[in-house]
Amino acid sequence: MSVSPFDHPLLSDLLGDSEIAPYFSAEAELAEMVRFEAALANAEAAEGVIPADAAEQIVEALRGFEANYDAIRLATAKDGVTGVEFSRQLRDWVGPPADKFAHFGATSQDIVDTALLLRLKPCLAIFERRLHRLVAGLNALDLTFGERELMARTRMQDALPIRVSDKLVTWRAPLVRHLERLAELTPRLMVLQFGGAAGTLDRLGDKAVAVTTRIAAALDLGVPERAWHTQRDGIVELAGWLSLVTGSLGKVGADIGLMAQNRVGEISLEGGGGSSAMPHKHNPVGAEVLVALAHFNAAQTGGMHAALLHEQERSGAAWTLEWLILPQMVMTTATSLRTANGLLERITHLGHQR
Amino acid sequence: MSVSPFDHPLLSDLLGDSEIAPYFSAEAELAEMVRFEAALANAEAAEGVIPADAAEQIVEALRGFEANYDAIRLATAKDGVTGVEFSRQLRDWVGPPADKFAHFGATSQDIVDTALLLRLKPCLAIFERRLHRLVAGLNALDLTFGERELMARTRMQDALPIRVSDKLVTWRAPLVRHLERLAELTPRLMVLQFGGAAGTLDRLGDKAVAVTTRIAAALDLGVPERAWHTQRDGIVELAGWLSLVTGSLGKVGADIGLMAQNRVGEISLEGGGGSSAMPHKHNPVGAEVLVALAHFNAAQTGGMHAALLHEQERSGAAWTLEWLILPQMVMTTATSLRTANGLLERITHLGHQR
Amino acid sequence: MSVSPFDHPLLSDLLGDSEIAPYFSAEAELAEMVRFEAALANAEAAEGVIPADAAEQIVEALRGFEANYDAIRLATAKDGVTGVEFSRQLRDWVGPPADKFAHFGATSQDIVDTALLLRLKPCLAIFERRLHRLVAGLNALDLTFGERELMARTRMQDALPIRVSDKLVTWRAPLVRHLERLAELTPRLMVLQFGGAAGTLDRLGDKAVAVTTRIAAALDLGVPERAWHTQRDGIVELAGWLSLVTGSLGKVGADIGLMAQNRVGEISLEGGGGSSAMPHKHNPVGAEVLVALAHFNAAQTGGMHAALLHEQERSGAAWTLEWLILPQMVMTTATSLRTANGLLERITHLGHQR
Amino acid sequence: MSVSPFDHPLLSDLLGDSEIAPYFSAEAELAEMVRFEAALANAEAAEGVIPADAAEQIVEALRGFEANYDAIRLATAKDGVTGVEFSRQLRDWVGPPADKFAHFGATSQDIVDTALLLRLKPCLAIFERRLHRLVAGLNALDLTFGERELMARTRMQDALPIRVSDKLVTWRAPLVRHLERLAELTPRLMVLQFGGAAGTLDRLGDKAVAVTTRIAAALDLGVPERAWHTQRDGIVELAGWLSLVTGSLGKVGADIGLMAQNRVGEISLEGGGGSSAMPHKHNPVGAEVLVALAHFNAAQTGGMHAALLHEQERSGAAWTLEWLILPQMVMTTATSLRTANGLLERITHLGHQR
Repeated sequence: MSVSPFDHPLLSDLLGDSEIAPYFSAEAELAEMVRFEAALANAEAAEGVIPADAAEQIVEALRGFEANYDAIRLATAKDGVTGVEFSRQLRDWVGPPADKFAHFGATSQDIVDTALLLRLKPCLAIFERRLHRLVAGLNALDLTFGERELMARTRMQDALPIRVSDKLVTWRAPLVRHLERLAELTPRLMVLQFGGAAGTLDRLGDKAVAVTTRIAAALDLGVPERAWHTQRDGIVELAGWLSLVTGSLGKVGADIGLMAQNRVGEISLEGGGGSSAMPHKHNPVGAEVLVALAHFNAAQTGGMHAALLHEQERSGAAWTLEWLILPQMVMTTATSLRTANGLLERITHLGHQR
Repeated sequence: MSVSPFDHPLLSDLLGDSEIAPYFSAEAELAEMVRFEAALANAEAAEGVIPADAAEQIVEALRGFEANYDAIRLATAKDGVTGVEFSRQLRDWVGPPADKFAHFGATSQDIVDTALLLRLKPCLAIFERRLHRLVAGLNALDLTFGERELMARTRMQDALPIRVSDKLVTWRAPLVRHLERLAELTPRLMVLQFGGAAGTLDRLGDKAVAVTTRIAAALDLGVPERAWHTQRDGIVELAGWLSLVTGSLGKVGADIGLMAQNRVGEISLEGGGGSSAMPHKHNPVGAEVLVALAHFNAAQTGGMHAALLHEQERSGAAWTLEWLILPQMVMTTATSLRTANGLLERITHLGHQR
Repeated sequence: MSVSPFDHPLLSDLLGDSEIAPYFSAEAELAEMVRFEAALANAEAAEGVIPADAAEQIVEALRGFEANYDAIRLATAKDGVTGVEFSRQLRDWVGPPADKFAHFGATSQDIVDTALLLRLKPCLAIFERRLHRLVAGLNALDLTFGERELMARTRMQDALPIRVSDKLVTWRAPLVRHLERLAELTPRLMVLQFGGAAGTLDRLGDKAVAVTTRIAAALDLGVPERAWHTQRDGIVELAGWLSLVTGSLGKVGADIGLMAQNRVGEISLEGGGGSSAMPHKHNPVGAEVLVALAHFNAAQTGGMHAALLHEQERSGAAWTLEWLILPQMVMTTATSLRTANGLLERITHLGHQR
Repeated sequence: MSVSPFDHPLLSDLLGDSEIAPYFSAEAELAEMVRFEAALANAEAAEGVIPADAAEQIVEALRGFEANYDAIRLATAKDGVTGVEFSRQLRDWVGPPADKFAHFGATSQDIVDTALLLRLKPCLAIFERRLHRLVAGLNALDLTFGERELMARTRMQDALPIRVSDKLVTWRAPLVRHLERLAELTPRLMVLQFGGAAGTLDRLGDKAVAVTTRIAAALDLGVPERAWHTQRDGIVELAGWLSLVTGSLGKVGADIGLMAQNRVGEISLEGGGGSSAMPHKHNPVGAEVLVALAHFNAAQTGGMHAALLHEQERSGAAWTLEWLILPQMVMTTATSLRTANGLLERITHLGHQR
């Protein structure tokens, strides 16, 4: 089944991204959930919350844990979250006597949210690399074509001649700022989720801070002042950043589409797309995709901001809304960055000789 | 890979719909694209646009057509649409001498849009049935519990006692109107897409209307005044309808969540969801899902309306944006209708004895 | 103060509409609220719910009613709705003995929603006229320029020559369908709002239907099966329609902007906009405005669909959200229709001689 | 006329903000446009771009400048921007011989965007103060009620008892992060807009950097690497921040509405809203308004992100879209902050005695 174009058998080379996609597989998610549980057991043993033997047994068992996917899927239809059946299976797998110490003091949201962060982190590192590559690509184009002439167009009409360099700087500068923004938001986002049933770590007593600190260190995440079960501003800030990136690249796509028009001819791209009816055409497909992805993410931001209204101590509604949107926004951004880099590399000509 | 929760190995029983999902498989899409091509060949032969022998050979060949999915996916990354490589493979499969008459006068958008309609049609029929079932379910609840008492609440505060029936009518009446709206929009939507390269059927000369009429009849679709390549109001009207349905059911979900609160207890549901940390809980998971799906579709409508700005004679940007959104809106609506029907059937108690 | 560009001292000739604006003045709103109260009193007297003398006194008093705007504004900050203080002032104005029969059995939402419909009705009539005028304008352009040649462009690249007429039909056909949609949605929308405190007309006993029918007749609105306090599908369907209209005109604007480009020159417009720095320019300002308005309304549809989640028997949150959005969507549509008509009338040239 | 609830004669005490509103008056906008022109003249004189005498004459004349609002409004309908007629009037007002040196080298977008920043700056300072006040208010509530008991509720069901303090920290922590975000985004946003006709300051030659630096210093704005005519990421980042703030406060509003329910009674507020039909009610109107404002801003973010697609060297479409949305988002945030502070101050009771 393939509702989503991001992993569609026919569309995914156009609209998906094979480097980012694996982070959103069920396997990857469960692997990070297991990693959380192991860190939890170790931290709780180190602080004397659970016996050291139990932790050893748990961590050892987790190494070989094989989830029953079908059972999780079935249970999730009833529980609304994968973590309930997951932690049940995990305790089963561990078996006595340590089973009663597995997942101790944690709740489903702790593992699901933390497992999301642990997968977002490498994605953001990839995005950072791709942004740097885009900046480098724009600099290279600037070196080659920067002094050539372009027509500046304001309100869809010819204005004045400018240099190619003048255009490229307006494509590049926002990307540099996106890197700066990413550096700022990352420490706010990459904070361990750990709160237990009601966000208060009620079962850990005076060991709550110490256990939290140990888990965070083990997973290389920040230490939360308090579980962020209902504080989704970090996640939504990320969504906004993703859409800033795709929006800036959408502007590049819109510009390229206009520059590539017949009778304008200010850009040439190797390998434009074909048409089933008009074999002579060379369509700037990647440029159009950038525009489509930008509008897609723009619409999603509205949904993510609605998910800030996360009522009481856990909102099944608002949290589920995130699941429906955020992975797609990450994938959209991946595809946009990949497509933009591909486009830049296929530019064979920019501007006019003066 | 599973970016989308609709077909996620762990989430799809919660957020997907196994009856609707197959219509959005690549197999289903290609099957309908093949059906279009056969109808096209037959229609063109009947009108003398292509030789009868050629049509026979094409239709015969299409029966066994096996697409090379990988090649389509690869080509689509370049062409921006599946139809270019699809029609190339199809002509290859047909072979000489009829190959040059396959796909004659059509363009990629004709097959892709028509194949979408041919899959939407059974989906809408299923939605219609589910809406009728919801109305019947509400009527049945009304018979059983209608005379019981509920507290009306306005602005989150107790207002006056009403009857359960008073509440149920406000859930039911919009659904009845949605059925009415569906009947009205269907003939506007279910219109053959057929325009050729530039929407003018330039290669069919004075046979354009006749061929169009024959294809439409064969596929049980309306006859277009003109190809709607750039006229997306029918598709966007559908998107609005889908979100009206999920919004109305989101209101039902919000109400159920509030009625099921402890100390309110105006509704009881069999089989509420569990918690990994609090086994005593019975969470109204389905009700929350209805709220999440409603907000998801609400956000998508903004994206679909942006796709109305379909510039010139074919916008790769606006059309691609539809692909990113519409299938998900259909699936969201399917899940919402399924979930709502499930919820109604699990209601064991509504209101208070007077 | 002028947060809104629709009634901004400097921007309203560009972005506002002086024919529609008056319907959204406080004066117009209060006048329709008064009209509702008069119809209510008459209907209740005719059915013997209140004394005939009282109705006469009320109706007579209402003729000269002067609201204290400042007091309503102040009270609304506390009550969340204008109707509470409005009906208090109204009873004061009526004075004894009839005052206790004024507003009898109604609630604030009845007057506010009905007063909205009574102002939307003439707005929709104006929109209908403007759509007809657009269709006529397109037909006139077709007569003059229809046989001329244009370049069809798909995916931003030249495809094949078409006729001007081929382009105009794709602009016109959606507008004709919008007229059809408007005719369909109007009877669903134009239904009296009347439900009393909890939507059940609890104070009217067995006269509820008869009184409702009389008020509806007096105000030329449909008779509701039941108050639609929480059933906002009619309002949201209208919002979708408004955005369909602006989206279709946004496509026209996008096309005109592209056709008017230098070196394309497929359209000429009288009186393009100037630039402070480049006096030689003739900017297709109206075309750009159509695009901006389309994207504005597209974003608003998401908010309106979120307002479908109108919990319980009256949601201050969801209802207030409508107030923030719907009037602006009406105004946006007005401006878009006005601007499109103005653009068509300024077209002096379309297409090329063949 | 009053399409917008923010400056509506009846709704503005509920939905507007009298401290922020004046910054969005036409008077305030023109005053800042004048300030830009004075700084421009001074800077250009200091760098020898225009004669010192001319600058003196210009600055002197600007002190008494009285714009003809009607003429600007009329011209803006044609030009699409206020700055064209504004600068024409300004040169007229200055008169010979200096008139030809007024607005020298600048373009409409320079004055309009800079005038926006100069008004946003005090607004953001007010927002910062209000956020600090909210944090202080939450701290004060924590001191008074923090140790009392509340029921934690997850997925709309009772979970475990927590302390009031546990709830308050989840309301406060996002606000503290919003202050941090504001400090980060402000220097990216508060950067002089100055680029001339095509963003290249073509008329200033080698004095471009020096003049830019002087204007920026005079207006206490950052020095741009390059005009950000088409780089709207700073503006859109601000929009995202505004919606993060209103979303976080929407969560507070949703919580208060649920806590204030009858039979829950975990919060008491002085002065709840009344009902025209049910005088006994005390509606948590402010809490509902917070939810409405959050959803409003959430929907607007989609529109603002769409405006990132600012094609070529100036997009009338994308820029106009900002004008339609951003001022309203600022006002929405103002109202939300004001309302939240008012709500906190009216809390007379939180939680239960243990």
